[in-house]
Amino acid sequence: MALEQVVRLFINKFGMISPGDRVLVGVSGGPDSVALLHLLWRMKDELQISLAVAHLNHMFRGEEARADARLVEELAESLGLPAYVEEFDVPAYRERTGLSAQEAARQVRYRFFEEVAGRAGASRVALGHHADDQAETILFNFLRGTGLAGLKGIPPVRGKYIRPLLDVRRHEIEKYCREHSLPVREDASNKKTIYTRNRIRLQLIPQLEAEYNPRLVEALMHLGHICREEDGYLEDQAALLYEQVSEAGRENYLLLEVKGLLSSPPALVRRVLRRAWRQLTGTGTDLTYLQVESLLDLLYKPAGGKIVELPRGVKASRFDRFLRLWIGGVVSTVPDYSYPLEVPGITYIPEINTSIEARLVTLEEAPDPGLLSPREALLDYDTLPAMLVVRRRREGDRFQPLGMPARMKLKKFLIEQGIPREERDRLPLVEAGGEIVWVGGVRPGEPWKVTGKTRRCLYLRIREGDMQG
Amino acid sequence: MALEQVVRLFINKFGMISPGDRVLVGVSGGPDSVALLHLLWRMKDELQISLAVAHLNHMFRGEEARADARLVEELAESLGLPAYVEEFDVPAYRERTGLSAQEAARQVRYRFFEEVAGRAGASRVALGHHADDQAETILFNFLRGTGLAGLKGIPPVRGKYIRPLLDVRRHEIEKYCREHSLPVREDASNKKTIYTRNRIRLQLIPQLEAEYNPRLVEALMHLGHICREEDGYLEDQAALLYEQVSEAGRENYLLLEVKGLLSSPPALVRRVLRRAWRQLTGTGTDLTYLQVESLLDLLYKPAGGKIVELPRGVKASRFDRFLRLWIGGVVSTVPDYSYPLEVPGITYIPEINTSIEARLVTLEEAPDPGLLSPREALLDYDTLPAMLVVRRRREGDRFQPLGMPARMKLKKFLIEQGIPREERDRLPLVEAGGEIVWVGGVRPGEPWKVTGKTRRCLYLRIREGDMQG
Repeated sequence: MALEQVVRLFINKFGMISPGDRVLVGVSGGPDSVALLHLLWRMKDELQISLAVAHLNHMFRGEEARADARLVEELAESLGLPAYVEEFDVPAYRERTGLSAQEAARQVRYRFFEEVAGRAGASRVALGHHADDQAETILFNFLRGTGLAGLKGIPPVRGKYIRPLLDVRRHEIEKYCREHSLPVREDASNKKTIYTRNRIRLQLIPQLEAEYNPRLVEALMHLGHICREEDGYLEDQAALLYEQVSEAGRENYLLLEVKGLLSSPPALVRRVLRRAWRQLTGTGTDLTYLQVESLLDLLYKPAGGKIVELPRGVKASRFDRFLRLWIGGVVSTVPDYSYPLEVPGITYIPEINTSIEARLVTLEEAPDPGLLSPREALLDYDTLPAMLVVRRRREGDRFQPLGMPARMKLKKFLIEQGIPREERDRLPLVEAGGEIVWVGGVRPGEPWKVTGKTRRCLYLRIREGDMQG
Repeated sequence: MALEQVVRLFINKFGMISPGDRVLVGVSGGPDSVALLHLLWRMKDELQISLAVAHLNHMFRGEEARADARLVEELAESLGLPAYVEEFDVPAYRERTGLSAQEAARQVRYRFFEEVAGRAGASRVALGHHADDQAETILFNFLRGTGLAGLKGIPPVRGKYIRPLLDVRRHEIEKYCREHSLPVREDASNKKTIYTRNRIRLQLIPQLEAEYNPRLVEALMHLGHICREEDGYLEDQAALLYEQVSEAGRENYLLLEVKGLLSSPPALVRRVLRRAWRQLTGTGTDLTYLQVESLLDLLYKPAGGKIVELPRGVKASRFDRFLRLWIGGVVSTVPDYSYPLEVPGITYIPEINTSIEARLVTLEEAPDPGLLSPREALLDYDTLPAMLVVRRRREGDRFQPLGMPARMKLKKFLIEQGIPREERDRLPLVEAGGEIVWVGGVRPGEPWKVTGKTRRCLYLRIREGDMQG
């Protein structure tokens, strides 16, 4: 099949171009982008598109780079196409930002394409990446460590960016350039093996082709296609699960329902956790395998109070029914409150939209204290002063947790329990005679615990919403 | 963490062993399996298991191999464990079967383990594969060309086989052997770089670690874990879709409903197609990317009559509402039949559980012939002899398809249309005056087509089941 035909099928397969589109072609002056421009130019009437050319001189390579720019201008002129040829001082930008040369160039280049596409009224930006670039990217990610997201490689279409040559081998592109006597210039920095990617391209891939698989590039292209489809499907499923298990949080705070995660396939849970972290940090980067594992550990083996620290200042802990992720300092939104506790009866606390149910039971009627959830408590009623109050925590609160020998700062206790700051003010404290007898949702106090001598038990339970009826 | 602790966590994570299990440990005499035996022996009381040792001399390496066997026997004796040490002439087996040395050894070894596990009453067989084996396997598959199934590498658990050391590096195993002064022997054939896998282990992985990523093995282990989970989830989803779209076929014949496939995510469709092929061939091997692509082409662009040939004699074509896959010659099961066609009316054909509806309509009332499905036909009623018959095809049938200049052999026409042999006898033929006027489900005859002069149209439609009632 002629190259033109292959490229036409690929464009159709991914719906890259529609009639009426104006396509801006990024042309460096190398064979890939020159061939791309020439192919699109030959197809433009058939595809019913108009074309424009964009070239950015990154100012890394002085006179050589200016010659590239002239070549692109002349080529565009010979094809009767408008050309946007500009320069940007990437070395200076790199100096300012501290980015690597390749990353700085990438950022500047895409900003340039965005800006020129706007000016030129282009709905699409076509780039010359080809199958060997794809193989190089996939192999690079594979060696560095990745999942499906890295193995899918460069996308054929992302937003307005299209890559019609992504299934074409570089040698076919070079052959096309020779056959059509197209003027091309090679970027000398592509030959420098100090860059890992160049070494992969110039040394490793040829070596692997010679020693292990002459069709390696094709195999990696196919892997890329499969992983793109499968990763897309898995992300769609993970997005659905994320919708189900995430509670509307705030910008810097996020809750994931543990029950929903535990009953879901681990493959999706991993993706939901990564999604939550991206949501909080607003980045497109990703957690590593081991970071996700540390979150899974929280989920599958809830060791009380553990806080996992993740990149970009995100912390996570499991508490009560939720896995919590938060970032930075979270400010309390619960106003101070204090209500008499109805015993027996139900006390509603509007500030946290929660009710506390209180019942008096005999030791025989009482549930086994060992089987209670943190949302329940059993206290020896006759050791308590008659007047019980439920209130928000306050500076300087002290508390003797069940099982502890002495009182301690409540704040220290809550930190040790891994309860995020946001959550601490949401815990209803039951107080009697100036002492905290239950930190609702966490633990009752040691002095009021039920013993063999207990006659009447106070059974307390937190219930969501207004249960007063 | 001590190696023993790492291995214990790994055994728990995958639920490899339960109290009361009898575990047969495959011991070659190399450091991996010797360390595995020693570790399990130390944990056996804690895990509440009993152990036995199995060793097979493959008879590739004469005296050296007999020394390995003696080492294993002595080791088992020193640990007070029963040993099943046997030999099998793998070179002769290889000669007989034409398999590669490695594949022949693998087959014989697993058969040996099955057999000894039965004799020893073992519920589990533990093998010494470790993280470097895993990295080697994943890299081997990656280079050769694969999808997720290959990237997941060696499974920690498959049936009764368990691999407790799969997350442990080889150097940690060797350190353990030195620390416990365990007697080990190296298999010299592991050093021969004529085997691709040995070259990957001895040359490529060290090179990639030195030049690209010192933590490559760890990165590949993590990739393996992710791909195992994701591949498992995708296979589960594909199995559900397969249930939905596959019609109960016969052993050598299988139908997939096109509509259900077209409305499903391509990632799952690919897996359903591979599943269908495995189902027909009964093999655990797989189709290549390009073979699956050729099936997808059938599905997404139904070019009339194309037959795709797949490995192991499987053929596929798209016809009517189904993608069909079949293998070998398929024998007809439809007995010969012939019924007068009721016009107007409904004629039921019990042999194929299908009805034909016939109506007379004016040209104005008739649907646009261009919009008819192959299951409908519109004929010029006044050009037809009065007596119409519906019957099965017979040897020597001839037919002039709509759009063709002359009559041709019906069989040839049906082959060109890609209709599998199994299907051909299921097509109801409508005959008038000894001529086939409609091959039901495929195409009407040219001589009876509707023209501008047509006054009365015969509208025919195939409906499934008995519609006479």
